[in-house]
Amino acid sequence: MSQGTRAVFFISDGTGITAETIGRSTLTQFDVAFDAYRIPFVNSVEAAWVAVERIRDASDNNVERPIVITTVMDPLINDIFAEADALVLDAFAPFIAPLETELSVPRQRHVGRAHGLVDLAEYEARMAATNYAMTHDDGVTTDYSQAEVVLTGVSRVGKTPTCVYMALHFGVRAANYPLLPEDLETRRLPAQLDAVRERLFALTIDPLRLHQVRENRRPGSDYAKLSQCRWEVAEAERLFKRERIPVTTSTSTSVEEIASRVLDQLGIERRLM
Amino acid sequence: MSQGTRAVFFISDGTGITAETIGRSTLTQFDVAFDAYRIPFVNSVEAAWVAVERIRDASDNNVERPIVITTVMDPLINDIFAEADALVLDAFAPFIAPLETELSVPRQRHVGRAHGLVDLAEYEARMAATNYAMTHDDGVTTDYSQAEVVLTGVSRVGKTPTCVYMALHFGVRAANYPLLPEDLETRRLPAQLDAVRERLFALTIDPLRLHQVRENRRPGSDYAKLSQCRWEVAEAERLFKRERIPVTTSTSTSVEEIASRVLDQLGIERRLM
Repeated sequence: MSQGTRAVFFISDGTGITAETIGRSTLTQFDVAFDAYRIPFVNSVEAAWVAVERIRDASDNNVERPIVITTVMDPLINDIFAEADALVLDAFAPFIAPLETELSVPRQRHVGRAHGLVDLAEYEARMAATNYAMTHDDGVTTDYSQAEVVLTGVSRVGKTPTCVYMALHFGVRAANYPLLPEDLETRRLPAQLDAVRERLFALTIDPLRLHQVRENRRPGSDYAKLSQCRWEVAEAERLFKRERIPVTTSTSTSVEEIASRVLDQLGIERRLM
Repeated sequence: MSQGTRAVFFISDGTGITAETIGRSTLTQFDVAFDAYRIPFVNSVEAAWVAVERIRDASDNNVERPIVITTVMDPLINDIFAEADALVLDAFAPFIAPLETELSVPRQRHVGRAHGLVDLAEYEARMAATNYAMTHDDGVTTDYSQAEVVLTGVSRVGKTPTCVYMALHFGVRAANYPLLPEDLETRRLPAQLDAVRERLFALTIDPLRLHQVRENRRPGSDYAKLSQCRWEVAEAERLFKRERIPVTTSTSTSVEEIASRVLDQLGIERRLM
């Protein structure tokens, strides 16, 4: 049976982020190669026909028909996708009937409501936390009085993206402190970190992976050498174990997953923004 | 008919981010108040029973039964949620049968596959772009030779979170340049921005909203005064219009939506990470 690369379209009247999140999570459960495209802001009949043309083009170039995952709420727009020769899956449809029954209220089809509009207090919290993460990155300042989380680990272990993710998506003020070779040589937790133990979390990484990441950044440097990476990771892991700092690995782990593990283990429950 | 606050649980064997994204998008279509909780990493029978206890507690405290939205893939775990007195919606279930038929392959139930694992090249792109956004924030450096997007606008308009979002989620190298009052007084596009016109995008904001944001940051300052905010926004908007810089508003708009609009309008098509 031929398994060509399937074209998949995530179509939305908003950003398409919800459609893509649902769609990718569903499709990764199938062992099939996909070519995925997001078509955002399809909020008019005209835009829907433009999308249909794109889907038809993909259909012409492939043996197998495309898959469309839509979060468009206006039925007049949504129905147009049936004109493309594709399998169309409406991401919301299966849940609407049971929820209408359960909640005894009809669905409201406000376009953008599901995606776009924003709670002002949440936006401020997110802005403030993102600003905090930017100004407390990489040990630039070690005043952690306002930090909810302090991440530590060797250089390039993935602290910065994790802090930024926690700030942007959970409004959590996250700082990070890089463990430099001179810190590791002392074999003691730096005093600034010792002061915030109950908010401290460590990241580690496979030394080979660290070597690849550092080589990309500074090719041929001592800093990137595999022996150096092995030494730093071993010393750091020994320190975390001795000092009982909770630790998770960033190897083959998405930023979302690392961020969720940290918040879960530190008992920080916060709404996703 | 009584409309109390409904308890909603987003349950996942991974981070719960997919469950929460699907759940919130669906629930915001109903004009009902919800109390939402995420229960991540439910990847054992024991963890499922702990979740059931939490749901039952919520059920005891409310007139109306809770709603559970699950992305757990193991049926042995997922079936346990039926023991809670709740409406249980499986976020993936409705799409599995049509996709199995369409793709002629069965669903793979690798836990974490839908959420956790990560493409190394993507991870590097995301790390590099995040690093770029951090080092090219707020006009710190105006070497935009490597920038794919340069955002501009007055102070506190929302440039930084937007750039960080584009970096983290789309791997896009986004820089930002704040239009200061001295820039606005010249009534000309700063030379650094003039050089990158085709990659330039502007943000604007309702002056009253800007006043609120700045007041939160520096209460009582001249910088935060409503008259100052009005003047800066008016001058900036005039400049964008005269120079034909594409512009979007950040007022009541989520960071995701601003980021998607910018990428859409600049024609940057990139996979969501």
